[in-house]
Amino acid sequence: MSKKVLIVGGVAGGASAAARLRRLDEEAQIIMFERDEYISFANCGLPYYIGENIKDRSKLLIQTPQAMKERFNIDVRINSEVTAVDTENKKITVRSREKGVYEETYDYLILSPGARAIRPNIPGIDSNKVFVVRNIPDTDAIKSYVDKKGVQSAIVVGGGFIGVEMAENLKERELDVTLVEAAPHILPPFDSDTVVLAEKELSDNGVQLILKDGIKAFEEIGSQIEVTLASDTKLTTDMVILAIGVSPETAFIKNSGIELGPKGHIVVNERMQTNKEGVFAVGDAVEVVDFVSKQKTAIPLAGPANKQGRIAADNVAGLQTEYKGTQGTSILKIFGLTAASTGSNEKNLRKAGIPYKVLTLHPASHASYYPGALQMTLKLLFNEEGRILGAQIIGYDGVDKRIDVIATVLRLNGTVEDLTELELAYAPPFSSAKDPVNMAGYAAQNVLEGRSSTVTWFGYLRMDKSDFVLVDVRSKIEYENGHIEGAINIPVDELRDRLGELDKNKKIVEYCQVGLRGYVAERILKQNGFDVLNVTGGYRSAAALNF
Amino acid sequence: MSKKVLIVGGVAGGASAAARLRRLDEEAQIIMFERDEYISFANCGLPYYIGENIKDRSKLLIQTPQAMKERFNIDVRINSEVTAVDTENKKITVRSREKGVYEETYDYLILSPGARAIRPNIPGIDSNKVFVVRNIPDTDAIKSYVDKKGVQSAIVVGGGFIGVEMAENLKERELDVTLVEAAPHILPPFDSDTVVLAEKELSDNGVQLILKDGIKAFEEIGSQIEVTLASDTKLTTDMVILAIGVSPETAFIKNSGIELGPKGHIVVNERMQTNKEGVFAVGDAVEVVDFVSKQKTAIPLAGPANKQGRIAADNVAGLQTEYKGTQGTSILKIFGLTAASTGSNEKNLRKAGIPYKVLTLHPASHASYYPGALQMTLKLLFNEEGRILGAQIIGYDGVDKRIDVIATVLRLNGTVEDLTELELAYAPPFSSAKDPVNMAGYAAQNVLEGRSSTVTWFGYLRMDKSDFVLVDVRSKIEYENGHIEGAINIPVDELRDRLGELDKNKKIVEYCQVGLRGYVAERILKQNGFDVLNVTGGYRSAAALNF
Ligand SMILES: Cc1cc2nc3c(=O)[nH]c(=O)nc-3n(C[C@H](O)[C@H](O)[C@H](O)COP(=O)(O)OP(=O)(O)OC[C@H]3O[C@@H](n4cnc5c(N)ncnc54)[C@H](O)[C@@H]3O)c2cc1C
Ligand SMILES: Cc1cc2nc3c(=O)[nH]c(=O)nc-3n(C[C@H](O)[C@H](O)[C@H](O)COP(=O)(O)OP(=O)(O)OC[C@H]3O[C@@H](n4cnc5c(N)ncnc54)[C@H](O)[C@@H]3O)c2cc1C
Ligand SMILES: CC(C)(COP(=O)(O)OP(=O)(O)OC[C@H]1O[C@@H](n2cnc3c(N)ncnc32)[C@H](O)[C@@H]1OP(=O)(O)O)[C@@H](O)C(=O)NCCC(=O)NCCS
Ligand SMILES: CC(C)(COP(=O)(O)OP(=O)(O)OC[C@H]1O[C@@H](n2cnc3c(N)ncnc32)[C@H](O)[C@@H]1OP(=O)(O)O)[C@@H](O)C(=O)NCCC(=O)NCCS
Repeated sequence: MSKKVLIVGGVAGGASAAARLRRLDEEAQIIMFERDEYISFANCGLPYYIGENIKDRSKLLIQTPQAMKERFNIDVRINSEVTAVDTENKKITVRSREKGVYEETYDYLILSPGARAIRPNIPGIDSNKVFVVRNIPDTDAIKSYVDKKGVQSAIVVGGGFIGVEMAENLKERELDVTLVEAAPHILPPFDSDTVVLAEKELSDNGVQLILKDGIKAFEEIGSQIEVTLASDTKLTTDMVILAIGVSPETAFIKNSGIELGPKGHIVVNERMQTNKEGVFAVGDAVEVVDFVSKQKTAIPLAGPANKQGRIAADNVAGLQTEYKGTQGTSILKIFGLTAASTGSNEKNLRKAGIPYKVLTLHPASHASYYPGALQMTLKLLFNEEGRILGAQIIGYDGVDKRIDVIATVLRLNGTVEDLTELELAYAPPFSSAKDPVNMAGYAAQNVLEGRSSTVTWFGYLRMDKSDFVLVDVRSKIEYENGHIEGAINIPVDELRDRLGELDKNKKIVEYCQVGLRGYVAERILKQNGFDVLNVTGGYRSAAALNF
Repeated sequence: MSKKVLIVGGVAGGASAAARLRRLDEEAQIIMFERDEYISFANCGLPYYIGENIKDRSKLLIQTPQAMKERFNIDVRINSEVTAVDTENKKITVRSREKGVYEETYDYLILSPGARAIRPNIPGIDSNKVFVVRNIPDTDAIKSYVDKKGVQSAIVVGGGFIGVEMAENLKERELDVTLVEAAPHILPPFDSDTVVLAEKELSDNGVQLILKDGIKAFEEIGSQIEVTLASDTKLTTDMVILAIGVSPETAFIKNSGIELGPKGHIVVNERMQTNKEGVFAVGDAVEVVDFVSKQKTAIPLAGPANKQGRIAADNVAGLQTEYKGTQGTSILKIFGLTAASTGSNEKNLRKAGIPYKVLTLHPASHASYYPGALQMTLKLLFNEEGRILGAQIIGYDGVDKRIDVIATVLRLNGTVEDLTELELAYAPPFSSAKDPVNMAGYAAQNVLEGRSSTVTWFGYLRMDKSDFVLVDVRSKIEYENGHIEGAINIPVDELRDRLGELDKNKKIVEYCQVGLRGYVAERILKQNGFDVLNVTGGYRSAAALNF
């Protein structure tokens, strides 16, 4: 007898599961329920359609119910909300716009209901000038508002990926855009020393940033809306985009006996099975294992949702495929800049109590003698055993490539030594003979093997200034153009001859522009009996931090 | 007592070894001998300087003897050719332009003499209109010839990386360029089904290609030079660039007792040690282990040379770093196109007797709904156990990224399953929720697990046409715009309803545009009891092969 499989949610996880399952099982009866009118749309493209970078709305609709029927013989039921799951009797309740309320039994149930944009319970939140961006109707609403009403300004609340993408895209529509973020910095996957580059790119492109301030209330005033911040600052704007995070859409299974995590996410094992027989769950609605910390977390991203959908289908079809955790590899275009990360950041490692080491480099995107090379900032986190824990890269060309290579090494449980050994493709337009990733590996290996001792600028700030001598090992001209307060200047190339100027009884902290000459200086000093720290990232990192 | 270390060759391997060794050992006496005037130059940039893409000649000189002295306290001796090595008495003979012939003893010797462009012994080869491209003097000669003499045409002999780069760069200088290659195809790292794309790009940009024809003789005729090909075709041109390969510069150690391989490469172990105590060798002059086949080979590339130089220095300094083989990861810009490869190709796997499976995909560089997505051709080679053996990618944006990710998986001995699990960075401008690398993994997994049976177009050509029915599963319009001779058309979306039109007793070979719909069709047919083969790469691959 053929299996009857019901799928709740018809987009990333749900549609992927449906398509894969059909390829594995031509006989199964597959019914996909979608509350809204659209299935299989490009969530990730929505901001770019609003920004008119994507011009053709139909491009957002990857599959239609009709096409899913023809290609995959899936019974797609749109405008059909699943309102309850009865795991005892293996049936669900559906509220259909066309057919009213009915029940449907299942042998297997795959839940991919996703997550909804959080709308905090504050005054004025229900104003129709306060938008969220999750699906096509949301997007249509925002776009037609921006298109027709001659809107001139917008406040984006929340500096996560979607908030930043919306800020950029509304700016592309020539609105005055203010981005309000309650935390000290935007983009939580990044640490404060890298994210400053993203914040600068936003400011440089005219997005006004308000950090460390939340929202307290909205009030419509004529054709505008007034936003009151936690600090009581009042801002007036034509529209508000709310992008302060998402929460799993799992209210409809509250009474099903399906286990939920502390924040309402569905608990699944590595085969995407819930605690209830025959019930699988995937996507934004589930808890996953953080690949680095091995702790439970939730990471709402499209790649994992698609993969999990495929894995759930495999398991329904009898293949024993496993999902081995989420790294949170993510990437973002911010005007001309690219910001990408994988694995953990310092913040999360500290929270998880995982000891780590950190390095910052500013390598060039390709051979610097070939036109167009641009520096990127690459921050690598690794542990005492050399295991890669995470990376953050911000820059221009080639950022996506390097984060993917590091994400790959992380996934394969690789080490710093592996980074040094990677044989990456080199010709002058694409890379250097030692790729930035190799270079990060070398530098990290030097730290692990005791050849180099580094400190970050934040670490430097915590040091007792009377305890050490600060040396700027750049050239005289570079020094004169700006240096860290209190630094003396001994260019690396003069160091061997000027060792006498330094006191062997005092610790030396030294820096160059990016860290490389500082490391060379460190080697000279160390082998001459000095106690040295090289500031990782060099003056370039200090400049980004504005001190 | 401090070590005395001599280094022969002052460019990629030699200079890297010198710099690293100094960082490891401040006390060592390090002398670097370079036969020519220049050290540490960007070999890989030379063609682009001739093409005036790199405008400033000084950019090619990464380090000068003076700078190497100041930064690394290296005694750099240019115009100093090492003519003999006496491994018994640990000394070398040097012929210096300034100081005449002298000897120098060593504790350690690092050889990085590189490889010279092959000049076959044929009539007219010594004409000064026949150039090779290895170093700065070669480059100066070519550039000034192109600049001053009003040269209008060039013949490039040899379709390897350097030949193709020279063809492109001379074309950029608006010369009429003909590329002559003795083999049936250019660019040996690529198989014939992928390299056709590179050949097309050259032709499309006005480079005339002559394949399967060697050179027999040169003869100066007035201000021009006549090239006689093996086929007796005669071509007249203003200049010839000879780029038919390199051979190791090891004549000077012939009598040293240092073991050489069959083609004159220095034999080293994984610590870059030769058979002679204290003597190390690196770079283009050494034999390496092919990372995939584990056989000895020679792969003259800058990344390996730099890495090996660093490893030799490590071992001189007492660190036990090992070199684990070369994959041959390489990349090339060909006008607008990027061609990249890693690991083995079909040709070499067959030669090595290694069984393999092959798939070709044509994924988009990023989400197809976001502007600017371009298809690439991705060929993946893997074995029965799922181990990655090699990949070739030709396309535009994002080719370098995908080859580096696959090269990383290959390096870490990863499998097809690993490809499916990689969590790569996705936002619409950069990739798709299922990255091309994931997609290649999925497709390969389906082959390995028996869900899909594929055939290449070359395999198809070898099949007995009376044995099967050929089905084009694309849409009617696509079929009508061009299809493979003899194919009937049943669009995948109509297949379930039209199964009756197919004979279950006959094998079915089917194809779509790129392979995806073909796979979906295959799943439908297989589960309905048909014996099916899906042609990998689909009609797009067939079109590239011109049939
Ligand atoms: C604006 C935006 C930009 C994004 N950009 C990126 C990006 O660049 N990169 C990236 O990796 N990720 C991005 N994401 C995240 C990505 O889209 C999600 O991680 C992914 O779509 C999650 O898939 P899912 O199947 O869990 O949920 P969804 O794709 O949200 O699908 C869930 C579906 O279930 C339906 N549903 C919910 N409850 C019920 C019910 N009870 N009955 C019937 N149907 C129901 C919903 O209506 C919805 O259509 C973005 C998301 C948004 C909103
Ligand atoms: C035009 C061109 C483009 C290239 N493009 C790329 C590319 O895009 N990507 C890539 O990976 N690789 C590329 N390569 C290859 C790369 O440059 C080499 O693999 C690398 O330089 C090898 O390093 P090496 O130290 O072994 O030899 P080399 O860099 O060639 O250095 C050897 C040096 O030793 C000197 N020498 C030789 N014999 C003696 C002696 N007896 N005494 C004293 N000195 C001696 C030589 O004069 C030479 O300067 C390119 C090479 C060329 C020529
Ligand atoms: C559109 C959608 C239904 C596609 O599901 P899908 O059919 O599994 O995915 P694809 O079209 O990418 O095809 C992938 C399949 O084709 C196969 N394939 C791809 N290229 C192939 C080729 N050249 N040859 C052979 N097989 C190929 C893969 O192996 C895979 O099959 P498998 O899962 O059985 O191994 C689903 O991903 C979706 O709804 N996406 C839109 C929503 C979304 O993801 N939003 C978030 C991101 S914006
Ligand atoms: C120029 C040349 C001498 C450089 O040698 P090098 O000093 O080893 O190389 P780099 O300048 O790239 O520096 C690498 C070193 O800096 C360290 N480093 C790089 N960035 C760093 C940073 N931000 N912080 C700390 N250390 C850093 C690396 O760890 C490495 O040191 P290690 O080897 O001791 O681990 C040599 O590569 C050369 O001659 N190149 C030109 C010739 C050539 O390669 N041709 C072929 C390609 S065109």
